[in-house]
Amino acid sequence: MYEVEVKVPADLEAVRTRLEGLGADRERAIVQEDTYYDAPHRSFVETDEALRIRRESSRESGADKTRITYKGPLLDDESKSREEFETAVGDGGTMDAILTNLGFDPAATVRKERERFALEGYTITLDAVDDVGEYVEVEIDVEDEADLETAREGAYDVLEQLGLEPDDQLRTSYLGLLLES
Amino acid sequence: MYEVEVKVPADLEAVRTRLEGLGADRERAIVQEDTYYDAPHRSFVETDEALRIRRESSRESGADKTRITYKGPLLDDESKSREEFETAVGDGGTMDAILTNLGFDPAATVRKERERFALEGYTITLDAVDDVGEYVEVEIDVEDEADLETAREGAYDVLEQLGLEPDDQLRTSYLGLLLES
Repeated sequence: MYEVEVKVPADLEAVRTRLEGLGADRERAIVQEDTYYDAPHRSFVETDEALRIRRESSRESGADKTRITYKGPLLDDESKSREEFETAVGDGGTMDAILTNLGFDPAATVRKERERFALEGYTITLDAVDDVGEYVEVEIDVEDEADLETAREGAYDVLEQLGLEPDDQLRTSYLGLLLES
Repeated sequence: MYEVEVKVPADLEAVRTRLEGLGADRERAIVQEDTYYDAPHRSFVETDEALRIRRESSRESGADKTRITYKGPLLDDESKSREEFETAVGDGGTMDAILTNLGFDPAATVRKERERFALEGYTITLDAVDDVGEYVEVEIDVEDEADLETAREGAYDVLEQLGLEPDDQLRTSYLGLLLES
């Protein structure tokens, strides 16, 4: 499976109004707080790995869950895919204590409010990222590599319907943007 | 709180018969499989730390749960207490993949079948440890340090009622016994 994902800076209030006008379905609103760790024995910047604790809470139900995630280096430049292992943990504070006692240091925390909408088969995510800014992500998964180009064109079309500019596309992660800020 | 714990080698079948004769309450039977990890950046043997994934399943209900545990070095020789952090994880195999990708190596796995009984305020655990042998642990928690000696005498008395010898007491962990074997 292939993922097409386009991210651009945006004024979320204006995008929300457009989404309503287009009849998009509002799916859910969550708050995600991601803490990224430095390793004691190698530089994750050099090895292109990441270790993260993600705390996620639903704005509607208040329910929250915590997960630990390891992301390996890019397998190849073409596909931009990486090995990823993620599982739930009972208590984020305890998992943090285990990691810090092992010598891992919390390096940065990215906190964002996310609202998800669905439109024309695409998932549209409105992200308000603390200390970074407001962004919109348009995503879709496709089964066949042959469909990637069509899917990407469709994502650009969705962006234009939302009053956004495909040329403003950013490839830097929120963590990268936070560290650059 | 203080924990009194006495462990001796035993013939579990004979102890089980004695427990029935004494009217002890059988509490539960579980299987625990503990995997201990080596760290890539320091020797846990030298630092007196441990990192463990414990998979536990109930023999009655079949329900299982997995936890990750970090144990710090002894805080002092007197109390034998250490910092310990433990939390549930959703999937043990994924947590193992996260640790091994970070450079932690599974060093040893201790698998044991445990049956718990209660008698005279004490918890009596019958452990059949793969590749190590059969042991009985007698435990109790006490609030006050002043009660430690009485609690220990009581544990010895329980052992004798079970046909076991307090002088056979072992202080080595099952992991230690497995590594020595």
